[in-house]
Amino acid sequence: MKVVLDAMGGDHAPHVPVMGALQAAKDYGINIILVGDESRIKEELSKYSFPAERIEVVHADESVSMDEQPSRALKKRNSSIHIGTRLLKEGLADAFVSAGNTGAVMAISLFTLGRLEGVERPAISAILPNLKSKTFLLDVGANVDCKPIHLLQFAIMGEAYAKYVLKEENPKVGLLNIGEEERKGNELTKETYQLLKAAKEKGLNFVGNAEGRDIYSGKFDVIVCDGFVGNVALKLSESLANILAKILKEEIESHFVSRIGAITLKPAIRSFKKRIDYEEWGGAPLLGVRAPVIISHGSSSAKAIKNAIKVASQFAESHLNEHIEENIGKYGKINGN
Amino acid sequence: MKVVLDAMGGDHAPHVPVMGALQAAKDYGINIILVGDESRIKEELSKYSFPAERIEVVHADESVSMDEQPSRALKKRNSSIHIGTRLLKEGLADAFVSAGNTGAVMAISLFTLGRLEGVERPAISAILPNLKSKTFLLDVGANVDCKPIHLLQFAIMGEAYAKYVLKEENPKVGLLNIGEEERKGNELTKETYQLLKAAKEKGLNFVGNAEGRDIYSGKFDVIVCDGFVGNVALKLSESLANILAKILKEEIESHFVSRIGAITLKPAIRSFKKRIDYEEWGGAPLLGVRAPVIISHGSSSAKAIKNAIKVASQFAESHLNEHIEENIGKYGKINGN
Repeated sequence: MKVVLDAMGGDHAPHVPVMGALQAAKDYGINIILVGDESRIKEELSKYSFPAERIEVVHADESVSMDEQPSRALKKRNSSIHIGTRLLKEGLADAFVSAGNTGAVMAISLFTLGRLEGVERPAISAILPNLKSKTFLLDVGANVDCKPIHLLQFAIMGEAYAKYVLKEENPKVGLLNIGEEERKGNELTKETYQLLKAAKEKGLNFVGNAEGRDIYSGKFDVIVCDGFVGNVALKLSESLANILAKILKEEIESHFVSRIGAITLKPAIRSFKKRIDYEEWGGAPLLGVRAPVIISHGSSSAKAIKNAIKVASQFAESHLNEHIEENIGKYGKINGN
Repeated sequence: MKVVLDAMGGDHAPHVPVMGALQAAKDYGINIILVGDESRIKEELSKYSFPAERIEVVHADESVSMDEQPSRALKKRNSSIHIGTRLLKEGLADAFVSAGNTGAVMAISLFTLGRLEGVERPAISAILPNLKSKTFLLDVGANVDCKPIHLLQFAIMGEAYAKYVLKEENPKVGLLNIGEEERKGNELTKETYQLLKAAKEKGLNFVGNAEGRDIYSGKFDVIVCDGFVGNVALKLSESLANILAKILKEEIESHFVSRIGAITLKPAIRSFKKRIDYEEWGGAPLLGVRAPVIISHGSSSAKAIKNAIKVASQFAESHLNEHIEENIGKYGKINGN
């Protein structure tokens, strides 16, 4: 197993990506190719001891900044993202991980690797903790204007990911909507509901509409939505969790008795944080392109990068893309097109 | 000030609405007309002592169930919602409050009272606590498919509500989007951005795009979105707050030391709950119809109903609707239409 890591991606590159890579090589025995500015990467590497046989460096002249327009980034053919995805294309590695500019990683991956057979639009997903285990939400930002066929295909890709990578036995797929009943929704979701119902006849485990509250209820393993709604839901969730923790802290500090009790709470709060910690899940798979790509948050820590590399290797081992193409062929097209 | 309350609306009607009404009459000196099944209301009233001169009962033969289709509910002309809104129309009361079927309250209010001059679509709003004070979010479910002009008008109605009812001095208005930059978004938000920018020239305090995280950041006082996105955001928020509290409780209980400390935390947790408690805000104003209507959650407690009645009276006192019509005339139309 060999994973390519964009050493120039993220807010603290190459320092943090290099650290994450070395941890993944040590902890999981994964071979890693670091792509980016060779001298800066080697300088980072010189600070640590690590299993040298597992780490390669491939030089990239250019890098893409976090706020660069994807159309501009596409033209930088010697960027770490371009070179990294080309290594996949040429069969020299099994998966690609980047904590860089999401739009650029998506555009370049699509350009270099191409779409899976039958897939109209790749999607970015998010893995969110829920009361029971986790919810796989897609799309969370790749496609802000969607048609029903796109949501149907997101459902197929999400179901396959939950089954073959996350190892959920019979993942339950839901459509994000504003009510449980079939007749509820906007034009997009009402039409999508009909497509999902038809796909259910052919094997998709579609169980119905999911409401906003179901993203965290654990009632569904996979929830599909357009990328606009998904992006709002994701950012809202991240901030709300932080804000609630902040308010709780303020209240604890303003009550003397509570302040004393709070000290004893530390072990519980540590476990709590671990359970809601997005970094545990490592990164968001980009689904629908011809090789495994994982996009991590720009502010990822070394731990998050390490986990993303692990997820990327699981993605590569799962033969997910073959399953997706098979199911798209079976029930992911309209009128046989 | 006289507020009409739908005594048959909500999961525990007429018991809870009657209790809420009596509390509002006592605590705020507001006169209330209870509309609904007269004998059941009188039976409830007989349980309490209250300022009788402040409470009237108006009988309604029919009632609308919580899951009844709005189109069916519209035909029940003797329902508590129909009769309640007619009392407003006839000038016999100043505002209407219902914890009943949201779609039905909206449809019947619109049918009985009509739209404000120039307003294309009424909107339902939600008042959410944020780090600094509160965010006024609209639409949260009345309009699932929106055009840019609708969002522009939501901005105008929301700004006026924040200013004249919530008494924010110079409320900052944002457009819910997936990035801060002007060029970001889907078709709807990109076009809406241009309309809001134009309205800013004429007086609207539009400060730019808000992201999902800004609903709770306190950076904006008013945030506009289509009713689909708003509904998902609202339901997600309600559930996430509950779920985080549940996870924290589980963790506290599984750590012995923490379990002891938790006892001392009670005062802090009580204040915390009060700060994030949606019931404190009472209900969601329906904006764009010709008289003040407040829609409360079906599961509202008596306290929530009491607060909704107070909010309704503030709405009525504010002359909000005149301000909305004035601003719609000034900068709420496209090409002067």
